[in-house]
Amino acid sequence: MANHKRGKQSFILPEKPVITAWASVAGKKEKQGPLGKEFDLTQDDSYFGQKTWEQAEKKMQQLALDTLAKKAGMAREQFELVFSGDLLNQCIGSSFPLRNTGIPHLGLYGACSTMAESLLLAAMTVGGGFADKVVAMTSSHFASSERQYRFPLGYGGQRTPTSQWTVTGSGAALVCAKGKGPRIEACTIGTVTDLGIKDANNMGAAMAPAALATIKAHFEDMGVSAADFDLIVTGDLGQLGKEVLLSLSRKEGLSLGGKLTDCGTLVFDNTRQDVHAGGSGCGCSGITLCSHLLNKLHTGKLKRILFCGTGALLSPTSTQQGLPIPGVCHAVSICGGNA
Amino acid sequence: MANHKRGKQSFILPEKPVITAWASVAGKKEKQGPLGKEFDLTQDDSYFGQKTWEQAEKKMQQLALDTLAKKAGMAREQFELVFSGDLLNQCIGSSFPLRNTGIPHLGLYGACSTMAESLLLAAMTVGGGFADKVVAMTSSHFASSERQYRFPLGYGGQRTPTSQWTVTGSGAALVCAKGKGPRIEACTIGTVTDLGIKDANNMGAAMAPAALATIKAHFEDMGVSAADFDLIVTGDLGQLGKEVLLSLSRKEGLSLGGKLTDCGTLVFDNTRQDVHAGGSGCGCSGITLCSHLLNKLHTGKLKRILFCGTGALLSPTSTQQGLPIPGVCHAVSICGGNA
Repeated sequence: MANHKRGKQSFILPEKPVITAWASVAGKKEKQGPLGKEFDLTQDDSYFGQKTWEQAEKKMQQLALDTLAKKAGMAREQFELVFSGDLLNQCIGSSFPLRNTGIPHLGLYGACSTMAESLLLAAMTVGGGFADKVVAMTSSHFASSERQYRFPLGYGGQRTPTSQWTVTGSGAALVCAKGKGPRIEACTIGTVTDLGIKDANNMGAAMAPAALATIKAHFEDMGVSAADFDLIVTGDLGQLGKEVLLSLSRKEGLSLGGKLTDCGTLVFDNTRQDVHAGGSGCGCSGITLCSHLLNKLHTGKLKRILFCGTGALLSPTSTQQGLPIPGVCHAVSICGGNA
Repeated sequence: MANHKRGKQSFILPEKPVITAWASVAGKKEKQGPLGKEFDLTQDDSYFGQKTWEQAEKKMQQLALDTLAKKAGMAREQFELVFSGDLLNQCIGSSFPLRNTGIPHLGLYGACSTMAESLLLAAMTVGGGFADKVVAMTSSHFASSERQYRFPLGYGGQRTPTSQWTVTGSGAALVCAKGKGPRIEACTIGTVTDLGIKDANNMGAAMAPAALATIKAHFEDMGVSAADFDLIVTGDLGQLGKEVLLSLSRKEGLSLGGKLTDCGTLVFDNTRQDVHAGGSGCGCSGITLCSHLLNKLHTGKLKRILFCGTGALLSPTSTQQGLPIPGVCHAVSICGGNA
């Protein structure tokens, strides 16, 4: 068999699958943020016309899928496979939108790393010749996340300074064997890292060690360094988690070359939007990648990025049982359409 | 790029990845069932020495992984990737066992179809040359499932005649490019099917249409029929779901040739074990495949099976919001070691 594996955790895509289209759907607060004008579709109604927030999340994924098909100039039925997942219990934000569409579906759970995980698996599927026109998709919703993970919104609990604001949004990317657009060159699969952090309101700190481990593994496995990238973009560490990652990388002697940015710090402007430590949720890296980042890669303003989706693998039950918060990070190396 | 896709939902593995080892860990009731002697490891303590049932599920996956490594004659660290998922909120049964093991991990959510989903993705990964020595793993636990999906056990609720008994167990299979053992020939990825069934105590009926759709798609895509298989094994439809599937197949004119069996009816003996409509849960098809079925394929008593993992994609929230139960089914065609 062909051997595309590199090092311990990485693999290459010799024929570089192409991201031919991408779509983003977002809520009101995201529209008011720095990337607001780059989203394909936004709604001020946090219910997206549905009866519940969970159904709103389903609706966002439906809208993202429809927008993706439109932008790709395809019928939705032409998608050959959808990899998707979300934060809701049993991932109903991902399964319900695909009911009776006839599109093959493989469900994922990677917490907030899902955009990277789905993209990595889509690249593998297309690169291996197992399917073409494969969608990577995810979503999150501030209100459904708050009531599931923390408190009912009506309770009006005070948010801690380290807490992040779950993005209301859905991102979808179409990966094809041929076409024009940014291309996926290599991926690194993360390991589950646990340094014993137990504060469910400080998930950036819980995920930072996983981000460091995966970036380091990618550099080692692929023989690259920060100098090979225009940006190293972590998923949703937020402001605090990003600082923890910078501090950890200095301790380890791993240079990030001033290239580090984080979707949680890009999607909101903390000086005028009261989001504490920044954005989070699967939708955070989802809508940032599927608007701002892929736009810039497409137009050549970015030549190569390392997109590092980070996930905190906790559940309310594990937290209630006094367990720490494991983190994971998957990395996807994406080059500009003209590279 | 190579094209291994067949028809609308299927793909072939030209070099047939090998399942070189498999391991099963199960609880007391499963040990007392018809397959009891085939499990590698059973414990009478439903906590598996842990403080909580969720932790017991983590422990079962750890034991399954360790047993798998032992049976494969490898160190656990030699596993290159683990695909796994479970039924617990945020899949903590799958992420916690892998903490700090250094093994790359991709988390899945396919409900009770997870054994088939993980096996399918492991085959794809190995077949495409992206990694070798890839583990497909899942688990479920009667007590953690009951309290999460239905009622606390202490409540002593009466079970309905259509209800199934969640298997306490974990199954793991090792997929390699080379070696001896049953081989994966082709897979069919399921679509999310919803015929409007809303009874969360009759999940077999909710999943049966998905099973029919996937078996039909596999036959059409691959140009095969029931005659090409010794067994068509559904995941965990249970006795009632199996009857619904037989009835639906007759209506559609799709012959299953008397080859249909179901893991939910194999794992327990309903005449002497009070399990109502049979077994269910990710662990049901997990431990049945990773003991009885793979044993028989290995020794040549079975020449070829179509392993069809079925999943009910509901959540307690979706049920409380009055939504129906979507189903999914993924199929893996496995031939005996001597084929």
